[in-house]
Amino acid sequence: MSEVLSVSAVDKTGKMALHKFHRRPVGEHDINIKVSYSGICHSDIHTAKGEWGPVNFPICVGHEILGEVTEVGKEVTKFKVGDIAGVGCFVDSCRSCDECEEGVEQYCTGKGGMHGTYGSKRSKDLHPEGQTMGGYSSAIVVDANYALKVPENLNCAAAAPLLCAGITCYSPFKFYGLKSGMSLGVIGLGGLGHMAVKIAVAMGCEVTVLSRSPGKEEMAMKLGAKHFLISTDPEQMKKASRSLNMIYDSIAFFHEVSPYLDLLKAQGKLIMVGGVPEAFKISSFSLLPRRLSVGGSCIGGIKETQEMLDFCGEHNITAEIELIPATPEAVEAAWVRTINSDVKFRFVMDTAATLKEE
Amino acid sequence: MSEVLSVSAVDKTGKMALHKFHRRPVGEHDINIKVSYSGICHSDIHTAKGEWGPVNFPICVGHEILGEVTEVGKEVTKFKVGDIAGVGCFVDSCRSCDECEEGVEQYCTGKGGMHGTYGSKRSKDLHPEGQTMGGYSSAIVVDANYALKVPENLNCAAAAPLLCAGITCYSPFKFYGLKSGMSLGVIGLGGLGHMAVKIAVAMGCEVTVLSRSPGKEEMAMKLGAKHFLISTDPEQMKKASRSLNMIYDSIAFFHEVSPYLDLLKAQGKLIMVGGVPEAFKISSFSLLPRRLSVGGSCIGGIKETQEMLDFCGEHNITAEIELIPATPEAVEAAWVRTINSDVKFRFVMDTAATLKEE
Repeated sequence: MSEVLSVSAVDKTGKMALHKFHRRPVGEHDINIKVSYSGICHSDIHTAKGEWGPVNFPICVGHEILGEVTEVGKEVTKFKVGDIAGVGCFVDSCRSCDECEEGVEQYCTGKGGMHGTYGSKRSKDLHPEGQTMGGYSSAIVVDANYALKVPENLNCAAAAPLLCAGITCYSPFKFYGLKSGMSLGVIGLGGLGHMAVKIAVAMGCEVTVLSRSPGKEEMAMKLGAKHFLISTDPEQMKKASRSLNMIYDSIAFFHEVSPYLDLLKAQGKLIMVGGVPEAFKISSFSLLPRRLSVGGSCIGGIKETQEMLDFCGEHNITAEIELIPATPEAVEAAWVRTINSDVKFRFVMDTAATLKEE
Repeated sequence: MSEVLSVSAVDKTGKMALHKFHRRPVGEHDINIKVSYSGICHSDIHTAKGEWGPVNFPICVGHEILGEVTEVGKEVTKFKVGDIAGVGCFVDSCRSCDECEEGVEQYCTGKGGMHGTYGSKRSKDLHPEGQTMGGYSSAIVVDANYALKVPENLNCAAAAPLLCAGITCYSPFKFYGLKSGMSLGVIGLGGLGHMAVKIAVAMGCEVTVLSRSPGKEEMAMKLGAKHFLISTDPEQMKKASRSLNMIYDSIAFFHEVSPYLDLLKAQGKLIMVGGVPEAFKISSFSLLPRRLSVGGSCIGGIKETQEMLDFCGEHNITAEIELIPATPEAVEAAWVRTINSDVKFRFVMDTAATLKEE
């Protein structure tokens, strides 16, 4: 067992503290990653605030983890000491259900399902704290099968958010059939939305950003979008009617999707990635006549996450980030700003350089 | 111009009368089909009752038309006199938009869009009545590009409903990726539902029929289903949780779809083909975690309809029908029974033998 230092949430208010806990010894299939950078995802906040279920405090969240491999189990061939490795949203799954065999471990239907990178109850021999503990920490021990190789040409700090935000775009694009030459609408230019623009542009798509804020137009264009629409302007929306093959809806608060369906061409798809419990309304009358569909998507499997990282390496795609120190105060402040959508576009902790005992 | 005899709706009450009208002369790309059989689709009733928009009476509806080619335009190579030909839900489209070029003419986005087989306003040189007139008639003149070849081994009367009901199953199965070995749920065992069972079974799928009526179990099994679920029984529904790759929802009245989503496996799709104006509710929370989607579909293009007919020919698939005389009284009665879902499973008019002047 090894002791690690972390910035952990201590209660539901979003209060943080430095906290030491243990990782399991490096097993024969494991690697130890000394964390260089750790991204902040809104899911971290939802989880730690108890919005997605009960929480055992203190909890170390974070699932956009990037660092250097410092130890390698004897059965591991995928990594060697010194490699740059990443860990995304889950660290284990059953490995034998249809979904795991198909490479969509995020939808694992085996006993216990997919094990999230933090907050997933597990035996103490695997996770000494009795639950998985995430990336706001100095190091992580993980089964090499659930770790990713990060292309060396990418800026490491800015590559960390690819592990969650990047794959949350790439996987639905592939699954729902986005192809070069197609037109994609991106609703919401936040952490997910800005990655969607970059990845879709690199895929050869013509991207339209839809936002309520005129102030986002300049950045949308800078990221590679071709068009910008104020989603609250009926004139602009009407003009764009029937213009999109797919819409990537990254909005994480309640909204009706019907007004956006009108923007889709025949056989178009609206893909939701923002988890919102409140139900929205659609009718079969809006879906049938032009064969529209509305689907969801949730991160991506290990093989596809690797494919996404390689794609991003090839196209030199990383997130736009604000680098912050890995201190309780800085993380607390970053969470408040994330909740207020006041971030361009992802906070990343400069863990290796700044996570220190007081 | 040629005069044809028809059973036409004379007002919104569903009242029928024998009615003579004119078809255009057979042009160089046209064929004339002497109608042998014409199926009755619920859409005929919705249209004639003005439920889908204003109607010009008298109107001759019907878009499951099958008969013998009696005349062939000089540019037509696809048909020869004596062939069995079919006409489905539309008789023309722009032929140059992306959708037409892609072979999904039913979603034509050209000027005027797809022209339905009945009730579509057109110039009098093409349609002497000023609107398209459908299949409850003795003959139809149609552009050969919008007519289908019907496999000779199929029972002609029972093959007529393939032109609408058959393609309304086959096209979404193909578009949404139904494949051999997959499990399909079929909600509602009516005209569409029973075709869905037959076609999916022939595709190699394991079919579960969901119905509110226990009395439908025997027929479901006879059609080839492996399982039968009473959709109002929470126990049965719970047992079937996470068991289906796709659900074909043929219900044409208001219903919530959420309870059915639970039956889907990860990455499952619920496809709606029943046009219902009232909105149902879903939340992204029900779609995201298992990447579910809800889509619609509407008939199919000419090329795919031909593919479906050939598939049905190969597997000897036709509809279960009740043959009725092509008289105003018989059609009126059949419409009432169709509205009451009292038909197993499709009414077909024995047109050639029974449509006669008084």
